Amino acid sequence: MNYRLVFKHIGQIILIESVFLCMPLALAFYYGETSSATGFVFTFIISAIIGTVLSFIKPKDRGFFARDGFVTVSLSWIVMSVLGALPFFISKAIPSYIDAFFETVSGFTTTGSSILTNIEAMPKSLLYWRSFTHWLGGMGVLVFLLAIIPLGKGNGVSMHLLRAESPGPVVGKLVPKMSHTARILYSIYIAMTLTQIVFLLCGGMPLFDSVTTAFGTAGTGGFGIKNDSLASYSPYIQSVVAVFMILFGVNFNIYHLILLRDFKGVFKNQELKLYLGIIFAAVVAVTINILPMFDSLYQAIHHSFFQVSSIITTTGFATTDFNTWPLFSKMILIFLMVIGASAGSTGGGIKVARVIMLFKLLKNELKRMIHPRSIKVVNVDNKATDDGVIKNVNAYLSAYILIMGISILIVSLDNASFTTSTTAVISCMNNIGPGLDAVGPTGDFSGFSVLSKLTLCVDMLLGRLEIFPVILLFSPSTWKRGK
Amino acid sequence: MNYRLVFKHIGQIILIESVFLCMPLALAFYYGETSSATGFVFTFIISAIIGTVLSFIKPKDRGFFARDGFVTVSLSWIVMSVLGALPFFISKAIPSYIDAFFETVSGFTTTGSSILTNIEAMPKSLLYWRSFTHWLGGMGVLVFLLAIIPLGKGNGVSMHLLRAESPGPVVGKLVPKMSHTARILYSIYIAMTLTQIVFLLCGGMPLFDSVTTAFGTAGTGGFGIKNDSLASYSPYIQSVVAVFMILFGVNFNIYHLILLRDFKGVFKNQELKLYLGIIFAAVVAVTINILPMFDSLYQAIHHSFFQVSSIITTTGFATTDFNTWPLFSKMILIFLMVIGASAGSTGGGIKVARVIMLFKLLKNELKRMIHPRSIKVVNVDNKATDDGVIKNVNAYLSAYILIMGISILIVSLDNASFTTSTTAVISCMNNIGPGLDAVGPTGDFSGFSVLSKLTLCVDMLLGRLEIFPVILLFSPSTWKRGK
Repeated sequence: MNYRLVFKHIGQIILIESVFLCMPLALAFYYGETSSATGFVFTFIISAIIGTVLSFIKPKDRGFFARDGFVTVSLSWIVMSVLGALPFFISKAIPSYIDAFFETVSGFTTTGSSILTNIEAMPKSLLYWRSFTHWLGGMGVLVFLLAIIPLGKGNGVSMHLLRAESPGPVVGKLVPKMSHTARILYSIYIAMTLTQIVFLLCGGMPLFDSVTTAFGTAGTGGFGIKNDSLASYSPYIQSVVAVFMILFGVNFNIYHLILLRDFKGVFKNQELKLYLGIIFAAVVAVTINILPMFDSLYQAIHHSFFQVSSIITTTGFATTDFNTWPLFSKMILIFLMVIGASAGSTGGGIKVARVIMLFKLLKNELKRMIHPRSIKVVNVDNKATDDGVIKNVNAYLSAYILIMGISILIVSLDNASFTTSTTAVISCMNNIGPGLDAVGPTGDFSGFSVLSKLTLCVDMLLGRLEIFPVILLFSPSTWKRGK
Repeated sequence: MNYRLVFKHIGQIILIESVFLCMPLALAFYYGETSSATGFVFTFIISAIIGTVLSFIKPKDRGFFARDGFVTVSLSWIVMSVLGALPFFISKAIPSYIDAFFETVSGFTTTGSSILTNIEAMPKSLLYWRSFTHWLGGMGVLVFLLAIIPLGKGNGVSMHLLRAESPGPVVGKLVPKMSHTARILYSIYIAMTLTQIVFLLCGGMPLFDSVTTAFGTAGTGGFGIKNDSLASYSPYIQSVVAVFMILFGVNFNIYHLILLRDFKGVFKNQELKLYLGIIFAAVVAVTINILPMFDSLYQAIHHSFFQVSSIITTTGFATTDFNTWPLFSKMILIFLMVIGASAGSTGGGIKVARVIMLFKLLKNELKRMIHPRSIKVVNVDNKATDDGVIKNVNAYLSAYILIMGISILIVSLDNASFTTSTTAVISCMNNIGPGLDAVGPTGDFSGFSVLSKLTLCVDMLLGRLEIFPVILLFSPSTWKRGK
């Protein structure tokens, strides 16, 4: 393990975080929120010191392997959350540090589950920071680092970091150089966020609301600034958010293809087609199912579209309490939670690309059972997928189920309802936000024990970092000497 | 497809069923149950005629491939259930044919889910038939066929049939000849069933009760003859059943090894060790969790041991209403439902052997991520498992999750509770019997719609035949001409 280089990069991450703390700090002064200001100043000083010290480390050698990448990513996400929780705790806006940590992990991992029972009572600067964690966590802070700092020659370091932080079974290199890829990704991300803010402002949404809502949408996070999420905003604003959630759930490679005017590549993309197909089918099924609950077909379509879009992209905004919907609709939403958005997007879940691979594996296996001697290769987008990726997807799925099982067992010690316990874990592991029952759109996560909250924090990190980096952190063989 | 040979074998299966109908027919006369007698006579005549006609088919060629085996097995299980349901329906003991079909599928697949609200009101001859379907379905009717009729030279036909009907990722050939393997399996099965009957009789259980309970235990089915399952029997009888459930959940290869005095092979068996380890851990965890509900530690251990044994072996007998237990214990039971018993036993579920393979795959994948260039092979019982088996296990798991998801969606249209809908599907697909909430140990499956009942029937068949034979039945490529 190249400890020096790992810690150097973690230091750089902390420095970036400290810079980003200045914006809410300014807001705290502007709104005259003194206790929040104290929290931000304190956290800024701590992070600036630790970050500066660590980033001055001189690495002895430049060797940086896959496991170094995984460890850097996992550790920096944990450190970011530990520090990012301080403003909530120091300002006493969230009196328990575990709760503040939960809220911050939920923010960075773009989950959006909250322990707050009254969001509107929070100081504005803290609400801004809370929503901003979504935006930063959405595209990834290491990707940000890659975009602004050259990390040595060659693609070794950058590749390993990007691979460990980016969602999806395969990392798409847009251009040969990783730092360029990172810059393109962030440029698209920023441009889309700004576009959404403009659309929201046009609907008469206040600037503060527009910016925080756009942060929550872009990162597919789901933290709102109102107790009823988006229910009290106009249908226009709700629709803008619904459309942008879907856009942020698309693989960003698609936008790069559009910029390159490669429309053929866009239309041939299997994942995009299936992603949009699932959304369409789910909206139709839910609309028919909830129609009797609403006054008009329009209203049923509106809420169905918003909720499907919010859940499949793992955002978690709500316009209505879907906990009161019929079971069939709730089940559809739960399946969308697990499927999740596209690979290479800011959304969570298993990802549509992995679902495609599993289907193809299944189809090939069925053919092999009928014709035992034929050899089949799994194709995705007309590229043969090598055995390694297939094995990785399978191992991912096994780990996913295993971890979900263990988490549900631990959370069930709280003796909440079966529905609450299972959907809380599903929601956190797929970085959605709300579940059903006590953790439904009108509920929150404050009722869980400390053990359950910590378990859910780990689940959120596992979900965002796609399991393996976090598991490897706890695997003894990662820490063995030598290559 | 070798249609002639497929239908010939299905004919032979139907003939075997007609022979087995004679026993309950005799009981119906003995107990003077005239309407049941009519039902059995009628069904006997129909099966005897169809069976005789089909079994006289002369196959044109002896070619019998994997897909012929799968189709034979799936079709014969469906035909067996269609005919086996007739006595319930004709005797008017179960007025709806769908309900009678559900009950029979539940019997043959050794699920034990029931639509009966008052079991004790059923005629004894029908109760005998109901329990006997468990016994026959447990070891498999095609294995029985193999044991008594020579199916042509070579192992082709026998191998394909045995592979399609036997549970587990790999079929253990005990001896080179398949018909001998089948005979050894059934001999062990009969001997163990008789031993259990003797143990039950020693505890003062009436003969009829002992025989039917032993049928339910041996097949790991779970149909009882009392409304409260086994709650009203003595602790001795409950303990005998608990121990025998565990014994019937062991891979029958182990018993063959014991008969050959190969104790080293027994002690080295990974699946056996993990199976017993899981039981031990689950009993301890549940006992601690339910301790406050019982008067003594002994009682808590007794009920915990019985319920864990009943659920992991996918039997489904109950001594107490575990629906009232704390959520943690219920969750453990749900996980045991999914894990299931050992491969090559009469139990259902994913099977402990597959769980082992998934764990090893996961471990290798983690190592590969740290050391990308090393090559690892998955070992089970010190034999390298080839890539084909691993892919098969993965495809099985994907299909399993997919089918479970679709089934839950369909069943949720009934708008029962989240817990009822999900556990009903989990219970049927893993051939357990009871679920939680409305389908808990004191509930039944009578409240579901016809659509849900049919879905659950398909799930039970998918679970018992391990998915692929049934899927292949509906796959267009199975029915294409040529090899």
